[in-house]
Amino acid sequence: MSRFWSTVVKGLTPYVPGEQPKLANLVKLNTNENPYGPSPKALEALRGEINDGLRLYPDPNADRLKSAVASFFGDIEPRNVFVGNGSDEVLAHVFLALLKHDKPILFPDISYSFYPVYCGLYGVAYQTVPLDDAFAIRVGDYAKPNGGIIFPNPNAPTGRALPLADIARLLDANPDSVVVIDEAYVDFGAESAVALVRRYPNLLVVQTFSKSRSLAGLRVGFAVGHADLIEALERVKNSFNSYPLDRLAIAGAVAALEDREWFDRTRQAVIRSRTKLVADLEALGFEVLPSGANFVFARHPQHDAEKSALALRQRSIIVRHFKQPRIDQFLRITVGTDEQCAALVGALRDITASR
Amino acid sequence: MSRFWSTVVKGLTPYVPGEQPKLANLVKLNTNENPYGPSPKALEALRGEINDGLRLYPDPNADRLKSAVASFFGDIEPRNVFVGNGSDEVLAHVFLALLKHDKPILFPDISYSFYPVYCGLYGVAYQTVPLDDAFAIRVGDYAKPNGGIIFPNPNAPTGRALPLADIARLLDANPDSVVVIDEAYVDFGAESAVALVRRYPNLLVVQTFSKSRSLAGLRVGFAVGHADLIEALERVKNSFNSYPLDRLAIAGAVAALEDREWFDRTRQAVIRSRTKLVADLEALGFEVLPSGANFVFARHPQHDAEKSALALRQRSIIVRHFKQPRIDQFLRITVGTDEQCAALVGALRDITASR
Repeated sequence: MSRFWSTVVKGLTPYVPGEQPKLANLVKLNTNENPYGPSPKALEALRGEINDGLRLYPDPNADRLKSAVASFFGDIEPRNVFVGNGSDEVLAHVFLALLKHDKPILFPDISYSFYPVYCGLYGVAYQTVPLDDAFAIRVGDYAKPNGGIIFPNPNAPTGRALPLADIARLLDANPDSVVVIDEAYVDFGAESAVALVRRYPNLLVVQTFSKSRSLAGLRVGFAVGHADLIEALERVKNSFNSYPLDRLAIAGAVAALEDREWFDRTRQAVIRSRTKLVADLEALGFEVLPSGANFVFARHPQHDAEKSALALRQRSIIVRHFKQPRIDQFLRITVGTDEQCAALVGALRDITASR
Repeated sequence: MSRFWSTVVKGLTPYVPGEQPKLANLVKLNTNENPYGPSPKALEALRGEINDGLRLYPDPNADRLKSAVASFFGDIEPRNVFVGNGSDEVLAHVFLALLKHDKPILFPDISYSFYPVYCGLYGVAYQTVPLDDAFAIRVGDYAKPNGGIIFPNPNAPTGRALPLADIARLLDANPDSVVVIDEAYVDFGAESAVALVRRYPNLLVVQTFSKSRSLAGLRVGFAVGHADLIEALERVKNSFNSYPLDRLAIAGAVAALEDREWFDRTRQAVIRSRTKLVADLEALGFEVLPSGANFVFARHPQHDAEKSALALRQRSIIVRHFKQPRIDQFLRITVGTDEQCAALVGALRDITASR
């Protein structure tokens, strides 16, 4: 604490990202990265962009990327697309531009733990809405006055997906609020609400290149919604940083979007590995929530989750554990390659046997 | 305007960056890019970083880059360094973390036009302090109650540099305010205030890789100051976006810092070209402010600046003109290669001859 700090800084409780260990040879299943690399075409596009042209600023509007996103989905226009330096930056702008109103915003009690941090940064009031006993979102619980609604679909860290029909019901019930669906994990087993954007002017869908496009190291995210919502985000972005996406990020993201074959092949591989991982965990006595994501959320009735996470770490396997009410007996485990999943299951077999 | 917009968004007047035209074959002297490409070692480091490892998140703290910055300057530690997605992002966090207090902050009336935009974004009160008649900063004019002081050195768009002794006087006179020196252009002819960081706990120095390291297309900036000031920036950054620098940006920036030979050779080339450009412009009757930057700020007593800018554009040469009181008769001209400067001077010779 210093007298030079603003009041805002003094009151912040920053987000703590999952560990990015600097050790090699870990089985790293803690931050939901994709076990398969990015599209070779994306890597090729990156190589092609490395030249003296880096002396020039990028296109501040990243028009090529907006067009590529619009083409990917088909029935939207570039003016329905906002792009940013990872979906975390996109979400930050969303909180300031579209979720800061007089009434509190609503999000689940168990959800992405960055949401309350953004609220702290921008002075956005919020109320959490408890998930039901099966850790599912019940859209009826959101039928109260609010300044906006946001949740991930599939939810994090539970992995549970909400059907599109429920999202449409939520939008119908909240025509005066912006409803933000944070689809970081959608490509692994949920239906994207981008299909609803033309019907609902109050819907904003946020996605990332970090998971299904395997480009966490490149930092690209985007939002899709009515042009009026996008304009609000552009105004904040252009009051914050004119050029959030560098030339390489734009080139790599465009090429990744265009390689649908790699995208489909790798996400299907993750989905197949998840099916086997869930069966193996259940065979060890774990209860596993139904997952539409590239991770599973699992608890063992006889084994403390924090102790299991530590025991895994001693075997050079890292998973994520949250010291948080309701979920402190769960482990969040990224779906790795089949080899990584087998190593995890083998280690958990040892750990659960030893008592 | 939309009912879904927050009050903050409704009140914003976003920054307008210099044009990034999509045409080729322009003599582009409008956004102060470096005419020489980045260090070949930086390009090599970028190539080496393009691999499947992009599937993994970057180091959220970019420790390698902080260490490289500390090594470059020599008498500071990594904990004195903050890094961000271009110096514009760094500055945005500075306004919220260190310049938002009860009293208004001070900056020159003629200065970087993003400053009032940041103030609008975060609700920071400000007062402008007029430059003197020679467009110089007089530090005595800042001797009034304030919540902080910020200006570029060399100043933009004037190019005038302030001696380090004046900055030390300003710091001595304002021990209770954070003083931010924005050194985007410092390597082309001013003294860096990084030399004062150990003496003044209220000094923050901001630099960029976009100009003297010729990496505008990569988006990397940093700040150097007392660890307490850096911690405030980290808290805001970690409440906004955990990973603002991607893996490529970190690798390229580290290699660019390490290649001092390229850095010195290219900035000396720019300085030499500037000397000749100034002489040529003066020979055409232009008044040119003394420049410590990679651009010059020049006016002609008989020729309207806006008309000259348009006439240059018709000849495929673009420079920057600001429709702003006191400086609307100036052109801001980036120092290009000698060939580009010659093309500019030739065109201006025609334009100023024709009346």
